[in-house]
Amino acid sequence: MYKAVVMAGGVGSRMWPVSRRAHPKQLLRLAGAETMFGHSVTRMDPLMLPEHVYVVARADLIDTLSEQVPSVPKANFIVEPEGRGTAPAIGLAAIHLLRDDPDAIMAVVTADHFIADTAAFRTALAAAEALAAAGHLVTLGMRPTFASTGFGYIRQGRRSYPVGDLVAYDVLRFTEKPDAATAEDMVRSGEYVWNGGMFVWRADRVLGEFRRQMPAFYEQLGRIADVLGTAAYEPTLARVWPTVERETIDYGVMEGARDVVVLPVEIGWSDVGSWASVFDIRRPDVDGNVIVGETETLETTNSLVYGGDRLIATIGVDDLIIVDTPDALLVCRRGREQDVKTIVDRVKARGDESLY
Amino acid sequence: MYKAVVMAGGVGSRMWPVSRRAHPKQLLRLAGAETMFGHSVTRMDPLMLPEHVYVVARADLIDTLSEQVPSVPKANFIVEPEGRGTAPAIGLAAIHLLRDDPDAIMAVVTADHFIADTAAFRTALAAAEALAAAGHLVTLGMRPTFASTGFGYIRQGRRSYPVGDLVAYDVLRFTEKPDAATAEDMVRSGEYVWNGGMFVWRADRVLGEFRRQMPAFYEQLGRIADVLGTAAYEPTLARVWPTVERETIDYGVMEGARDVVVLPVEIGWSDVGSWASVFDIRRPDVDGNVIVGETETLETTNSLVYGGDRLIATIGVDDLIIVDTPDALLVCRRGREQDVKTIVDRVKARGDESLY
Repeated sequence: MYKAVVMAGGVGSRMWPVSRRAHPKQLLRLAGAETMFGHSVTRMDPLMLPEHVYVVARADLIDTLSEQVPSVPKANFIVEPEGRGTAPAIGLAAIHLLRDDPDAIMAVVTADHFIADTAAFRTALAAAEALAAAGHLVTLGMRPTFASTGFGYIRQGRRSYPVGDLVAYDVLRFTEKPDAATAEDMVRSGEYVWNGGMFVWRADRVLGEFRRQMPAFYEQLGRIADVLGTAAYEPTLARVWPTVERETIDYGVMEGARDVVVLPVEIGWSDVGSWASVFDIRRPDVDGNVIVGETETLETTNSLVYGGDRLIATIGVDDLIIVDTPDALLVCRRGREQDVKTIVDRVKARGDESLY
Repeated sequence: MYKAVVMAGGVGSRMWPVSRRAHPKQLLRLAGAETMFGHSVTRMDPLMLPEHVYVVARADLIDTLSEQVPSVPKANFIVEPEGRGTAPAIGLAAIHLLRDDPDAIMAVVTADHFIADTAAFRTALAAAEALAAAGHLVTLGMRPTFASTGFGYIRQGRRSYPVGDLVAYDVLRFTEKPDAATAEDMVRSGEYVWNGGMFVWRADRVLGEFRRQMPAFYEQLGRIADVLGTAAYEPTLARVWPTVERETIDYGVMEGARDVVVLPVEIGWSDVGSWASVFDIRRPDVDGNVIVGETETLETTNSLVYGGDRLIATIGVDDLIIVDTPDALLVCRRGREQDVKTIVDRVKARGDESLY
C-alpha cells in the first residue's frame, strides 16, 4: 500500500517574525487561506487518502497540526522526541509503516514547501510509486527555473526509466549548494535538477540502506520497532532517541545508496526558503507589490507588506520586505532575506523565548 | 506682570501614526522623557513661574495637558471650543490676562516646538518683555541654519533696538514659504529670519490691533470679556465662537500692525514639523540612526526607528523612517515625510477615528 509521510519537523526561522519555534513555517498561511502543512496533505488527495497520510513532528506541535487536517487519524502522527535530522525521522516513520504493511511504499514529502501544479505533483507521485515498487529509491528532481545557489543539485545519468509520460534517470551525483558560476554551468548543461527533499521508496528498501550505511542507527531503530504498539514504546523512544546520530537523509543514505533514480518534475515548486519566495507564490500587483493585510501605500513598488491586524502605511519605498506581527516587526531590504537568520540568532541570545 | 500663553491647540498630523487628534504632537515625547508640551512650560522656569503660565487648548485635551504640568493652576487653562486659528486663540487669551492685570505683558509661545538652548530662550523672552513694555509688538525671529522652504520668513529693517546683549529690528516684511532659489537668496542676504510663531506684547496692545484690523472679532471678544468670571461665560463663548472668523495672527494682525519689531535669536529651535526633524533633536548614532525602543539592526544607516513595546528588526536599510505604534505602522523613505499628511487624509477617509 502507498503511504505518505509528511515531514513536519522544521522551524523555518528565515520566515521570522511570523515563524517561531512554537509556530513554525508549516503552520503559516503564506500562499492563501490554508496552512502550508494543511495544503501539503490536501494536495495529495485523492492519490493519498487521509488515512494513508502519516506525519512526523515534534510532540508540542501534534495537536496544532492535527487540527489542520482533522481527517488524518491521530494515530498517524508520529512523535519525534527531538529533531535529529531527516534520516532518523524517516527511519522512525519506516518502522511504523512496516508494522502494518511489510510491502508499504512510502512517499516522503515536505510540509513547508509550495507546489503550484498539484495535479502534476500527484502524477509524479504516482509514477514514483511504480518505480519504487520495482525496487528503486526515487528522488523527485525539480527542473531548475534559474541558477539558484540556495539548493543542492542532482546530476542525472544516461540510463532512463520511462514511466507514464515521465522519465526517470539514474543518479550520477548529489552536489551541495553551488556558487553562482557553477550554478550557471549546471543549469545550462540541462543535466542537473534541484534536490527538493522528496523521496519515494519501499519502506523495507530504505531500512536496508540504513542497515548497510547507518548500522548503529539501524540497531537503535530495531530496539524501538521491537516495542512498537506496546506500553514500552514511548519510554524506549525517549531513552534511545537522544543517543541517535544527527544525520540528513542526503548524506546518511542517498549519496551512498544503490539503485537511486531521479524523477525530474515540473510542478511549480518553491521551498519558500525566505520572504523573497512569497513573490513566487503570490502574484504581485501592477506595482510589483505583494500585500497581505490592511495597508495604505503611496509610491510603493516591488515590496512585500505582510501584515496582520494593524494598519501599515508605506511612502516612497521600493524593494522592501515588511513583515508585521503583534510582538515583532521586520523591515528588510530585498535580497537580504537570508540575514533574517542572523536576527533570529540575536533574538535567541536575548533569551525572550516567545520572540523566536 | 509678565505672563506666558502656551498655544496647545495643534494636532501635528505629519507626526502620524504617533500623533493623533486625541494624542496630538504636543503630547509626544519626541525629544526625551518629557512631553513637548511639558517641556514648553518647564523650559520657561524660572522666568515664568507656573502660576503665570496660561494654556489655550481644546476642551478634550485639558485634563491630559494639565497632568503634564500639575503646578500650573487648572484655572489657567483656557478652553477653545474649536480651533479657529491663532488670531482668535490669542485674542481669547488676551482678555483673560487683562481681567486680572490691565498691564499684563503676554509671551505667546508654542507647545510643540523643540528648543535646544533653553537659557538663550529665557534670555530672549526677558529681552522681549522690555521691548513689549515699551509698546512694541515683538516677534521672535529664528536665525536660519539652512535655506528652508518650510517656514515663513521675516525681513529685518535697519532700525535697531538694543536690549541687553540682543538687538531687535523693525520689520520690513513678512513673507510666505519661499521656493528653494528664493530661500537661498534670503538666507544668503543675512536680512531674513524664520517666523517661529512666538510673540511678546502688552495684552492691551494686541487688543488694540484687533480693534483696528479685525473689528468684528474685537466686538465678539468684547461680548465674551463682558461675562468673564460669570456663569454666562461658557454659554456665551460656546455661542459666539463658531461665528468667529478663522484667521492666523500673521495675516490677521502682524502683517498690518504698527511698531512691530523682530528679535533675532539663536536658541536651537526646531518646529518638529515632520519625522525628519527628529534627526535634529536627537543625536544620531555613528551609523546616522536615531533609534527609540527595542531594536535589532543589521547594516542599517541614516534611519529613524521610533518604536514602542514591540521588537523592530531592520536589515540592509538606509534612509528610512520607521514609526511603530500599537495599531498603525509607518514606513517612509527619508525626504518623503511631508506625504505623511496624505496618508492621514486617506486614513480619515476610511472613517476609523481611532486611527487619526
